Amino acid sequence: MQALVFDGNGLKYEANYADPKPAAGEALIRPTRLGVCSTDIELCKGYMGYSGVLGHEFVGVVEAVGNKEDKHWVGKRVVGTINCVCGQCDMCKAGLREHCRDRTVLGIMNRDGCFSDQFCLPVMNLLEVPENVDDDHAVFTEPLAAAYQILQQLTIEGRPFVTVLGDGRLGLLCAQVLSQLNATVRCIGKHPEKLSLCEKWGVKHRLLQDVGLRMDQDIVVDCTGSHEGMKVAMGMVRPRGTIVLKTTVAPRHDDLQVSNGFEELDLSPVVINEIKVIGSRCGPFPIALDALSAEKVDVVSLISRRMKLSDGEAAIVAAKSGAIKVLLEP
Amino acid sequence: MQALVFDGNGLKYEANYADPKPAAGEALIRPTRLGVCSTDIELCKGYMGYSGVLGHEFVGVVEAVGNKEDKHWVGKRVVGTINCVCGQCDMCKAGLREHCRDRTVLGIMNRDGCFSDQFCLPVMNLLEVPENVDDDHAVFTEPLAAAYQILQQLTIEGRPFVTVLGDGRLGLLCAQVLSQLNATVRCIGKHPEKLSLCEKWGVKHRLLQDVGLRMDQDIVVDCTGSHEGMKVAMGMVRPRGTIVLKTTVAPRHDDLQVSNGFEELDLSPVVINEIKVIGSRCGPFPIALDALSAEKVDVVSLISRRMKLSDGEAAIVAAKSGAIKVLLEP
Repeated sequence: MQALVFDGNGLKYEANYADPKPAAGEALIRPTRLGVCSTDIELCKGYMGYSGVLGHEFVGVVEAVGNKEDKHWVGKRVVGTINCVCGQCDMCKAGLREHCRDRTVLGIMNRDGCFSDQFCLPVMNLLEVPENVDDDHAVFTEPLAAAYQILQQLTIEGRPFVTVLGDGRLGLLCAQVLSQLNATVRCIGKHPEKLSLCEKWGVKHRLLQDVGLRMDQDIVVDCTGSHEGMKVAMGMVRPRGTIVLKTTVAPRHDDLQVSNGFEELDLSPVVINEIKVIGSRCGPFPIALDALSAEKVDVVSLISRRMKLSDGEAAIVAAKSGAIKVLLEP
Repeated sequence: MQALVFDGNGLKYEANYADPKPAAGEALIRPTRLGVCSTDIELCKGYMGYSGVLGHEFVGVVEAVGNKEDKHWVGKRVVGTINCVCGQCDMCKAGLREHCRDRTVLGIMNRDGCFSDQFCLPVMNLLEVPENVDDDHAVFTEPLAAAYQILQQLTIEGRPFVTVLGDGRLGLLCAQVLSQLNATVRCIGKHPEKLSLCEKWGVKHRLLQDVGLRMDQDIVVDCTGSHEGMKVAMGMVRPRGTIVLKTTVAPRHDDLQVSNGFEELDLSPVVINEIKVIGSRCGPFPIALDALSAEKVDVVSLISRRMKLSDGEAAIVAAKSGAIKVLLEP
């Protein structure tokens, strides 16, 4: 089958990658739509030390299952959570399965991803997609769930001022989701053409260069996907305010041992201003699917490119350089 | 008068520093006992860009006041909170006076500190010391309050595993204070002779080199005062656990623009493990004074050196190199 593979050094489209077979408890899925995420870009820079088939955002159809008793899944249109868990460790037993000590993660950690003709995922990770949610919408379930995760983690008091930092894929989803709160939400970014989508949704927006670091926001959500995001967030959040960290980036390397100009991150503002920082990763798929089904969130406006899996290398380049959401089709 | 002054470049004992005069609302205090804090050491490395008289831990006697109506303070033995606030800004009005936008901070920000014969502080910052709390105890009120601040910020559920990282001045106070919770507390450090104090208090302790980074602690309190503290804390805290950050350190500079071997801080574990990081600074003086009065905390065991203010430069060196608590007397 065809697959988009990061081999630890470079990204390659492979026309003859080995076909996967579903193990016991797994489903074999044929994806119909795939989403390129910033994490894919970071993985190609060395984040997580991953190698294998890339990709963790998909909607697809179950083609086969490893266990007979899972046969009812065959033919179903599904999305799937990306953490494949053991069910036995302290985290699983404590109800924190996403933090399973022995997990594999689709296209991120020790498990081939979905940028291929077929891939495997445990059936317990699958959710059937409601009929009124088409593939173009359903493929956003994973990143939309990640945006809804913030609502699970925040306590909203009064009518807080909320800044979403970053006008990329995740930032624009977070801005929409947070706007459902009793809060004054603004999205801050560097790209007028991306920020202009906020007009459609009635979300306030500003260019970063036009906004001061006034330490006056109750909540700042860092979706910049950049090393600078945390520094800007610390400058915007009020004392005793909250920063939600969504950014994961590959560490910057400096092979020559010569500083190339980046400043070391100084966390003393967190202490001085008694800021609360909340790390936030994967989120609740059922809530995201419900939101898509009820058309609470506009995801289609985010689609800026459609490409074939065989153009995968170009797709990653496009996702790096200006496109909001790049969708792949096998 | 004599004073210990950091002029932006170096630390100097000055025998003829200008006498301070209390402004309206201020008291003139003659300290009887002074404490050297790690913050003093960091200030001498450039932290906060401070210059002026050092020192913010004291107990002393009010000698004069700026306003007649404050006369009842004269002759009282006092400790004092270190943030001098405006009472007018949004933070003050929101009850977050320690985060006043226009504050000065004793010996830390735009206000001469207490390492001198006399210094000024607003009378509203003063608390009378109970008779049964002698000077050797009272001088610990400020750092002890900083330790108690953690209890104001944490929500304790079940019987959590708590690690205090750092066996210095603040770490040993935090270990004692956190042991008052329904929690299993251990103190981790690098100095057997400092950790051995924990025996006295029935607090578990281990050498850092003997402890694995198992991501199994519910709460980790970073009192290391070092750039490495946060990294170790991220390795010890469990997914969805809490790191309390107490450490403030001067940023590391590299004038030659050549990396001297330190790794950039990588916050991705905070995101991946959905860790909560809580910055924690100054704390409640009344609670600390009550604890000293009720002998809930042993502070006297922490005193390792007593020196004269005129030996101040040597005192900072001693505090840097192994001594737990260095007390100064004018």
